[in-house]
Amino acid sequence: MKDPIASLAEYIRFASVSTDPAYAEGMRGARDYATQLLQSLGFAVETVATPLHPILLAERKGDPSWPHIVLYGHYDVQPSDPDALWTSPAFEPTVRDGRIYGRGAADNKGPTIVHMAALARVLEAHPDLPLNLTYVIEGEEEMGSPSMGWFFERYGERLAQADCLLVSDTGSPGGDQIVVTTGLRGLVGLEVIVHGSRSDLHSGVHGGAVMNPIRALTALCASLHDTCGQVNVPGFYDGVGPIADWERAQLAQYPTDEASYRELLGVSELVSAKGLTPLEGVRFGPTLEFNGIGGGYQGTGSKTVIPARAFTKITCRLVGQQDPQRILEALKSTLQERCPEGVRLEFLDGGLAHPYEVMPPHCAGLEDNSVLGSTFKAAHIGITECFGKPPLYLREGGSIPVIADFKKASGLDAVMVGLFTPKDNLHAPDESFDLDWMEKSIKTFVRVFQEIAGLPAAASG
Amino acid sequence: MKDPIASLAEYIRFASVSTDPAYAEGMRGARDYATQLLQSLGFAVETVATPLHPILLAERKGDPSWPHIVLYGHYDVQPSDPDALWTSPAFEPTVRDGRIYGRGAADNKGPTIVHMAALARVLEAHPDLPLNLTYVIEGEEEMGSPSMGWFFERYGERLAQADCLLVSDTGSPGGDQIVVTTGLRGLVGLEVIVHGSRSDLHSGVHGGAVMNPIRALTALCASLHDTCGQVNVPGFYDGVGPIADWERAQLAQYPTDEASYRELLGVSELVSAKGLTPLEGVRFGPTLEFNGIGGGYQGTGSKTVIPARAFTKITCRLVGQQDPQRILEALKSTLQERCPEGVRLEFLDGGLAHPYEVMPPHCAGLEDNSVLGSTFKAAHIGITECFGKPPLYLREGGSIPVIADFKKASGLDAVMVGLFTPKDNLHAPDESFDLDWMEKSIKTFVRVFQEIAGLPAAASG
Repeated sequence: MKDPIASLAEYIRFASVSTDPAYAEGMRGARDYATQLLQSLGFAVETVATPLHPILLAERKGDPSWPHIVLYGHYDVQPSDPDALWTSPAFEPTVRDGRIYGRGAADNKGPTIVHMAALARVLEAHPDLPLNLTYVIEGEEEMGSPSMGWFFERYGERLAQADCLLVSDTGSPGGDQIVVTTGLRGLVGLEVIVHGSRSDLHSGVHGGAVMNPIRALTALCASLHDTCGQVNVPGFYDGVGPIADWERAQLAQYPTDEASYRELLGVSELVSAKGLTPLEGVRFGPTLEFNGIGGGYQGTGSKTVIPARAFTKITCRLVGQQDPQRILEALKSTLQERCPEGVRLEFLDGGLAHPYEVMPPHCAGLEDNSVLGSTFKAAHIGITECFGKPPLYLREGGSIPVIADFKKASGLDAVMVGLFTPKDNLHAPDESFDLDWMEKSIKTFVRVFQEIAGLPAAASG
Repeated sequence: MKDPIASLAEYIRFASVSTDPAYAEGMRGARDYATQLLQSLGFAVETVATPLHPILLAERKGDPSWPHIVLYGHYDVQPSDPDALWTSPAFEPTVRDGRIYGRGAADNKGPTIVHMAALARVLEAHPDLPLNLTYVIEGEEEMGSPSMGWFFERYGERLAQADCLLVSDTGSPGGDQIVVTTGLRGLVGLEVIVHGSRSDLHSGVHGGAVMNPIRALTALCASLHDTCGQVNVPGFYDGVGPIADWERAQLAQYPTDEASYRELLGVSELVSAKGLTPLEGVRFGPTLEFNGIGGGYQGTGSKTVIPARAFTKITCRLVGQQDPQRILEALKSTLQERCPEGVRLEFLDGGLAHPYEVMPPHCAGLEDNSVLGSTFKAAHIGITECFGKPPLYLREGGSIPVIADFKKASGLDAVMVGLFTPKDNLHAPDESFDLDWMEKSIKTFVRVFQEIAGLPAAASG
């Protein structure tokens, strides 16, 4: 494998936008390029056809008693629009001021190259590295991984023979502070449409005789939180677990306080539900958020209508053992019960994802000699050595449904080493990846692989 | 004046869309055409320049002791879009099945021609008709009459010398049932914008730490009605008057019951505020309606954002002595008081209009020999003779701000004879005016002018 920066640049050049059929060639190119890299590392690569974009399943197998690690990543990227806001074109990787710019530089091509470059260095020194390794690199992560369920049905049992998952698709605060993500929130999506009259009505002529769908909708929305900011849906909090003492201790070390967080978001006050601070609220608490609302006249000036319909798009984030399917049903039946007379509700179900949580044994002062335990330890050692400070172990507010699905399908827990930082502009124009950070990350993963394999640190490449 | 149908067709052909500068030629054409018609009836026509579209002020003056009637109308029309939905082009008047189709056929060119054709017939028989007549035909009614305030400042005193206003810019149920409109609701417009974070936030990463502007907005909206459907703004009901016994008696004769009204609107249930039936609610009660709402993601599928802002457009309809300026202030201060932490409100004031109400003296069994009283009586006689049944006297839910402004500026009360019917498709494609109804209306106004002037019915043209 050539220089990792050159490899990353080459990988970025394939415009692998999964959501848009116009990018089929970029998808194929990125897939082929990742295949070549894996083959150059000695992997046997299987291209698993799915209903949409193929999944790369690559294996390097040896003695069954060796630790067996599954590395997950994705070769697809977000769309690049608005292209006009990019300093250099999204799919023409460019290095400026120590960063490589291009769509996918951080999410997820940079971290994928980090893992591969680290492996290349370790394998160069130890061609007989005593690790069983499996790569799963999918092409639909940016679409919500619709084919992964299909994949798990066919390959879940085979993956169950592995020991744990190693992933770099989460964030860290930067400034050499790495976060090992110990939890991802689950998700429930629901669109609610309120239907009133057959067509829009003149609000002067008919106002006073009909239930306005916007009035009904806003009353329904308002009923979903109590005055303490808690979600007011019966059963919603079933399964929400406590915040562990070690989690509070970790959060206390997080390099963002409320003042700087408020500044970052540009809000006058941070607001969280009763019992949680805002910094706890985004990681340890469940939420119900309105992502969009619409109805009636939205142009300039006024148009005096009672609209025929209004809608809102809701997503809930879940933690602990909250069950997305049960919460979806509770939400729908609660809205139905509270629906005022004179309008009717229509529901469009959105995505469902289970929350995922894992406890690194050493955080709770436990000794754990399983491969999962030693992978957490290896990550701790590698990060502490190469970034100069130990990682923080924190749950994150976002959702990566496939991590909980891996657990469900194959029993594998995940060690998630966050390699993005807020400066990387994920999903936005001028996405980039810091080259110093990249080299430190490669060195980190060299140590991680050495440690898991039980090799001495001196062999570091 | 030629055949009224031909005159109306010619008038419609001038595409007098006031809101769009591209129609300046149509505006000029309609204005010139109305001027010619008025001149042919012996009126002295003054074209009053305003900041936007000129107002026609036409007078036929005689003995100052004669009754003096002001006829109000407008020569501008609504835009014709969506043009594709018209059976024949909007500005190419076409007669089909006893109706003349074209934009403005009913609102307000048809009724204007009705008045003029009736006057032409009366004047032909009685060139010395003992009536002082003033026409005010504006060109901005479809934009909310922005220049009329300006006009009243300059001409209000002159108009105050007249006795009453005669208007046909309101509706009747059709089926030969005419409504004489005895009230128009006032109006308060307000757009409320809720501002949260600097830009949209990822609802997974930041959900739980900030007040979602949609949540704040829907809570604010929901707070504006109580559980009985009454508006929950302190002072809102100040000045709302009672429903008179004669008004309930008139409404009881209205040819629409709740079942057919529900059917017409296509709603599952009619809903009105406590103390009012739905048919009362649209005429006699004030309302607060949401005309539009928006914020966040409104496209297909989902986008997990906490939007930076959300907004709603509100209009209230007022009755009795409710004061629009005070209600606007009450609404804003109430929303400000109820605004949750973490967001801020921005207000965009919309239009304000006072409610207008008039009591036809004979409805309350009073004898009134003023010109207003005899104009109501004349309308009653004319309508009863020519449509075969007496009119109903009812307030209407819509607003025509200029009527209250006439009252305020010149002390004139209005006799409003509704010549539109629901079949006329006002403001919609295939607007039309029924030709039989038009002829009955002309005959009605012949009788109205004769009666006000004290001429014998036998002179009917």
